[in-house]
Amino acid sequence: MIHVGYRKDEEQVSQPKRKLKLGVFIAGTGHHVASWRHPNAVPDAAMNLDYFKQLAKKAEEGKLDLLFLADSLSINQTSHPNVLTRFEPLTLLSSIAESTSTIGLAATASTTYSEPFHIARQFASLDHLSGGRAAWNVVTSSIEETAKNFSGEEHLAHHKRYERAEEFVEVVKGLWDSWEEDALVRNKETGEFFESSKLHELQHKGEFFSVRGPLNVSRTPQGQPVIIQAGSSEDGQKLAAKTAELIFTAQNDLDKAKEFYQSLKGKVEAAGRAREDVSIMPGIFPIIADTEEEAQAKYEELQELIVPEIGLSILQNYLGGIDLSQYPLDGPLPEIDPSTSNAVKSRFDLVMNMARKDNLTIRQLYQSVAGSRGHNIFIGTPQQLADVMETWLREEAADGFNVMPPLLPEGLDVFVDRVVPILQERGLFKTDYTGQTLRENLGLTEPKNRYTT
Amino acid sequence: MIHVGYRKDEEQVSQPKRKLKLGVFIAGTGHHVASWRHPNAVPDAAMNLDYFKQLAKKAEEGKLDLLFLADSLSINQTSHPNVLTRFEPLTLLSSIAESTSTIGLAATASTTYSEPFHIARQFASLDHLSGGRAAWNVVTSSIEETAKNFSGEEHLAHHKRYERAEEFVEVVKGLWDSWEEDALVRNKETGEFFESSKLHELQHKGEFFSVRGPLNVSRTPQGQPVIIQAGSSEDGQKLAAKTAELIFTAQNDLDKAKEFYQSLKGKVEAAGRAREDVSIMPGIFPIIADTEEEAQAKYEELQELIVPEIGLSILQNYLGGIDLSQYPLDGPLPEIDPSTSNAVKSRFDLVMNMARKDNLTIRQLYQSVAGSRGHNIFIGTPQQLADVMETWLREEAADGFNVMPPLLPEGLDVFVDRVVPILQERGLFKTDYTGQTLRENLGLTEPKNRYTT
Repeated sequence: MIHVGYRKDEEQVSQPKRKLKLGVFIAGTGHHVASWRHPNAVPDAAMNLDYFKQLAKKAEEGKLDLLFLADSLSINQTSHPNVLTRFEPLTLLSSIAESTSTIGLAATASTTYSEPFHIARQFASLDHLSGGRAAWNVVTSSIEETAKNFSGEEHLAHHKRYERAEEFVEVVKGLWDSWEEDALVRNKETGEFFESSKLHELQHKGEFFSVRGPLNVSRTPQGQPVIIQAGSSEDGQKLAAKTAELIFTAQNDLDKAKEFYQSLKGKVEAAGRAREDVSIMPGIFPIIADTEEEAQAKYEELQELIVPEIGLSILQNYLGGIDLSQYPLDGPLPEIDPSTSNAVKSRFDLVMNMARKDNLTIRQLYQSVAGSRGHNIFIGTPQQLADVMETWLREEAADGFNVMPPLLPEGLDVFVDRVVPILQERGLFKTDYTGQTLRENLGLTEPKNRYTT
Repeated sequence: MIHVGYRKDEEQVSQPKRKLKLGVFIAGTGHHVASWRHPNAVPDAAMNLDYFKQLAKKAEEGKLDLLFLADSLSINQTSHPNVLTRFEPLTLLSSIAESTSTIGLAATASTTYSEPFHIARQFASLDHLSGGRAAWNVVTSSIEETAKNFSGEEHLAHHKRYERAEEFVEVVKGLWDSWEEDALVRNKETGEFFESSKLHELQHKGEFFSVRGPLNVSRTPQGQPVIIQAGSSEDGQKLAAKTAELIFTAQNDLDKAKEFYQSLKGKVEAAGRAREDVSIMPGIFPIIADTEEEAQAKYEELQELIVPEIGLSILQNYLGGIDLSQYPLDGPLPEIDPSTSNAVKSRFDLVMNMARKDNLTIRQLYQSVAGSRGHNIFIGTPQQLADVMETWLREEAADGFNVMPPLLPEGLDVFVDRVVPILQERGLFKTDYTGQTLRENLGLTEPKNRYTT
């Protein structure tokens, strides 16, 4: 367990200029792997629309910037039971758009098992349906088994997946520019429906895709949906520096997070973009109560509910599907050659560091990672969580956070009711939405259409 | 223009047992190709969510069985301007699900440019989100240009597309059976989330796809979403007979429609299914007014708004992309070898029959087909339309209709306000929804899960 300390210093007095960006990452009954067993968990959460609508409304009450959904294209039967079944994210967010008015709606979609035309279209459609609140979290699918659901013999290797992703995003952004904003003139008198010089074929021909276009969705309220990137490997960072506007990352050490932050912002600049064009939002897994002791007790209550087989299975996945069943649970983690692993690299390194640092047994390690799945565990009071967030913002370890409540809905309720007001009081978080679109609320500029002069 | 007569005979006196099934097919400003130019047309209809919500609510007020959306994966710049841009259907219907409670929600999706896992998931998700109202209209994409948006060098030939479609539907239905209805036990005490004997891998290996499964969406409220098929070619009918539960078809002659009806029901029986398992719903394009003269004037008002280039372009598309620009507009249609055409076969035959029957010039022909795009044009009073529908139902030319209002919203308003009450009075249409799910309202049985004993 990691408890990130708060550094109280003189800087705290002056009002910081930057404000936190805050998302809530919703996963079924909550992010703790055993949350579904908690007495307060809603049993069918993962496929209960009313439950999601209630959460979305609560997040909007808290003025959070976005509601974030992960995704998966295959089932791991011994993993997080909570997300074994789930809604397809774009359809779910299209429904949620109707119950909310301002919060951003971020869906994960893989570039490895889809086509750019479909993805461009679905997110453009969501952007129209939601009045400019769509965001796409670009992932490359780290799970090898997924290939088997898509007629694939072999899952693409890590590097190749990112090459495909880079071209994929390029095509999607190109398709989003198909229609200039004022292309649709719809002149009933003359019979001119659109100005043909303002409709563009992309004519993309690359290594992975050849896509003519144009897209059959008009320019969206945000110009283009917001791009999120969540891979922290070298390849992932390269993609993020080039195209992402929000970056999600697993960071559980202030100094390492600062390093990552500086390094990535440097890469953004090297890619010819401004540092402010990209916001870095680490995940945080907060257990919040009135006292530290109560928070600790809450955490332990959840930890005790972890089923051992599932804990071990999650650890194995993080290590790239390595089979640990032959090693004693109370012995050390064996040597694993990272080059033989097709795991998410950043997650792999993080787990290996945890194991080595505290010399954890396999059992201790799965207990540490299974709960929060590698994300930064915070255990404490609302005041302390606000302190941590302030420190990370001030010290440039983060521009904001993606909040991953261990147990829902209560973890979101306590964050909105108890933590957000403190952040607002300190001037660290907005007291109301200032715009209508997600871009406006995040202070992101609207991408210029490449064809508009 | 075709005006289908009403055959008044002694049968009319006895109450018919069968009731009509009615869908409304929504396309932007309406199905007439020039509808967008009409003074009452909503200019941005095709991408206006509030407009779609208003239409969906009106259709539900009329107790219609379903709201139907077509789709396209490419743009034909000289075709129906009305649908040059559009929402992606699954996202749109997920939003509309929130504004309605009982009407069925049918989206078109192509088997040629998608993957069964995605389609199975999206429709299963919509079925959950809508409380059991999802239907999938299976199409194979007749437009060759579409391949260019999906990295394809060549569009699959007609027969091959249908072979792929048949396997595709088989896989989708298999994935929908992944979870037995009572698989998710979620026992908080024991830690058993699901009963593993009730979760099934499909392990499909076929010519086009190899898909392991299981799907990551639990069994849906309808068991499986409803399957619609809209191709009337030999291949299309074969697919429909095997898998469809609703069949949309373009029929504009009572005797030909009866032949089609009998032939298709025969094929359904030959495929080992009951005749009642499949409902045949021809499209109808009704221009309705208080008198025949007023209706005729309304039709002519729309016809006069057709832009010649677009009329010709639509005709060319129906003939499989044949270039007619070298022929005089006021001369006859040249001979066209159907074997060189990759057109929708049933549409091709229909257009050729129209041309030959009345010896139409190219201009007359495009005027005839562009407006309704080959569908059955009705021009008359509410009473007369009810008469036609009754005849077609009674004479087994149809089990219902997919109503394609030429101009929206008024074409739907008049159908719901003026025609539905007559049909209800005659006992030809339900006065209220009798179930919650689309299957219940259509009287379709819930497919048994293949694994449940």
